[in-house]
Amino acid sequence: MIMDKILLGHGSGGRLMHSLIREYIAPQFDMKMLADSAVLDGDIFLGGKLAFTTDSYVVSPLFFPGGNIGELAVNGTVNDLSMVGAKPLYLSVGFVIEEGFTMDSLRKILISMADAAKKANVKIVTGDTKVVDKGKGDGIFITTSGIGVVSGGVELGPDKIRPGDKIIISGTIGNHGVAVMSERNGLSFEPPVLSDTVSLVGLVDLMLGFEKDLRMMRDPTRGGVATTLKEMATESGLPMIISDSLLPVPDGVRGACEILGLDPLYIANEGILLAIVPADTANALVGTMRSHPHGAEAAVIGEVGEGDPKKNGMVLLKTAIGGTRIIDMLAGEQLPRIC
Amino acid sequence: MIMDKILLGHGSGGRLMHSLIREYIAPQFDMKMLADSAVLDGDIFLGGKLAFTTDSYVVSPLFFPGGNIGELAVNGTVNDLSMVGAKPLYLSVGFVIEEGFTMDSLRKILISMADAAKKANVKIVTGDTKVVDKGKGDGIFITTSGIGVVSGGVELGPDKIRPGDKIIISGTIGNHGVAVMSERNGLSFEPPVLSDTVSLVGLVDLMLGFEKDLRMMRDPTRGGVATTLKEMATESGLPMIISDSLLPVPDGVRGACEILGLDPLYIANEGILLAIVPADTANALVGTMRSHPHGAEAAVIGEVGEGDPKKNGMVLLKTAIGGTRIIDMLAGEQLPRIC
Repeated sequence: MIMDKILLGHGSGGRLMHSLIREYIAPQFDMKMLADSAVLDGDIFLGGKLAFTTDSYVVSPLFFPGGNIGELAVNGTVNDLSMVGAKPLYLSVGFVIEEGFTMDSLRKILISMADAAKKANVKIVTGDTKVVDKGKGDGIFITTSGIGVVSGGVELGPDKIRPGDKIIISGTIGNHGVAVMSERNGLSFEPPVLSDTVSLVGLVDLMLGFEKDLRMMRDPTRGGVATTLKEMATESGLPMIISDSLLPVPDGVRGACEILGLDPLYIANEGILLAIVPADTANALVGTMRSHPHGAEAAVIGEVGEGDPKKNGMVLLKTAIGGTRIIDMLAGEQLPRIC
Repeated sequence: MIMDKILLGHGSGGRLMHSLIREYIAPQFDMKMLADSAVLDGDIFLGGKLAFTTDSYVVSPLFFPGGNIGELAVNGTVNDLSMVGAKPLYLSVGFVIEEGFTMDSLRKILISMADAAKKANVKIVTGDTKVVDKGKGDGIFITTSGIGVVSGGVELGPDKIRPGDKIIISGTIGNHGVAVMSERNGLSFEPPVLSDTVSLVGLVDLMLGFEKDLRMMRDPTRGGVATTLKEMATESGLPMIISDSLLPVPDGVRGACEILGLDPLYIANEGILLAIVPADTANALVGTMRSHPHGAEAAVIGEVGEGDPKKNGMVLLKTAIGGTRIIDMLAGEQLPRIC
């Protein structure tokens, strides 16, 4: 009873939907679809904490150089858990599919979700499928929620940040946003720019094992490195000072940004993190991160400034020619539907 | 920096989005928006189990007699947790909003979500907001995920069902679906039919306290009572036999179904449950349920048949004139976007 396109009836709760889930979705995810709720072992949280997150994905186009909406939806939610120091365990997924969406595209998305979940060592345990009439959606929107466990002793947050701490980035910036914008605008660059969408679980595991005193992590997705640093500065009440010359911007991203009129600092990333770490072990931590494939280009890009009423909560960018630029959050709407 | 309509920039991750969340969304939900993941106490699951669920809501129209998409999204996810015997604790919410959606409508939806969460005694602890271009969505889609704790000793499931068990319904059927379809078709009925959207937390609490040996519960949402009973029959491998004359169908629903050409058995409900319970205490349990405002019209509507290779997995409806009708799942697409 599988057709080649999604019909409204696939979302009506009846026989069509059951066959879609049973024959199509559940097998990919190795999911037991007996009840709407998954019931899971509770003792794993003993002595630790439960991390809980959600993200809706509306990226356009759905397929872009280096990835698609499916793996993005898995990696993004997994990474949100990783950023609070949690080990990601379980995901849920909600699909809102537009009538007429092809089964072939759905299959590709499901396969890449299953693959991303496997790589991140998480299980997709429960889900939901809705269908909206043609013209009332845009192919497919995916909302993933995630549960993880934060081990006892792991405590990250802006209140841990101290003046003099170093700011580390785990890889090059701007890749995801440029990959999506290029595809949307029909541009291609040489070398090609691919989305960096990837799970950061392994890298974070390595980092937490090396540095017990890690202060805070956050992945610079929508709004880019600038916006995330501004959040960290605001929440810690301290200044963040980074150097233009230390920021790892790939040539492809730099070239694309010049053509598209974008600033790499504001471009979304989906496979890197920013970490604030104690100064004395920062270089050694970067060395450790570089031993991991997802941290191969890790670098210190700046430091947390001394408390100063005139600078607290600000992000300052030292430029190559010796100036200082104040960096604010992304203000406009030049990068809609980037994730 | 609040406008009267949603702009694409409200979803871009930058300043507009931060102000929307800080000034609009977080205050309604009493939410700390410091990180993308909420970090919660893990010890509450000790000795019990973790229940996890998700649902995307795409109901059209967004506002209908008796409710709106916001409270529906809270109550629906809370009820999915209740159905596996869990006490609902935390919700996440993902918004996909169409550019141009009015802030006024968003405010109404947020207020009713907060109100529904309060009534169900759950906290909305984390969320996400995306904006899609005008014409690529339909006002607002909401995905809620929920976490609950299943106390040690509570175990529900189709494998607990025994021949002779009674089938209980907690209230009248068809109200939600008819309310939505009426609004969509510009019809009004006398008496008016209102959605039954409500959290079943209190009622389920009462039921689990009264009957330790409750077999299974499920709420007959999309696909209606017929589809849910068919799921129970299929999963238990036993026949389910109900009587037409015992089904509580309000006059308004009956009248509307005649006009709209619908069968009340297939209409979505959002505030009732079906329970399979031991025969010897079924009537006493119904009496207890009737003491609760959300179970005031609880009734036994049938029973689980003896295992019989010719009937196993089937739902049989005894009609008033003495016949028997085989009930299957909803097959078509006559009720799209009902939740």
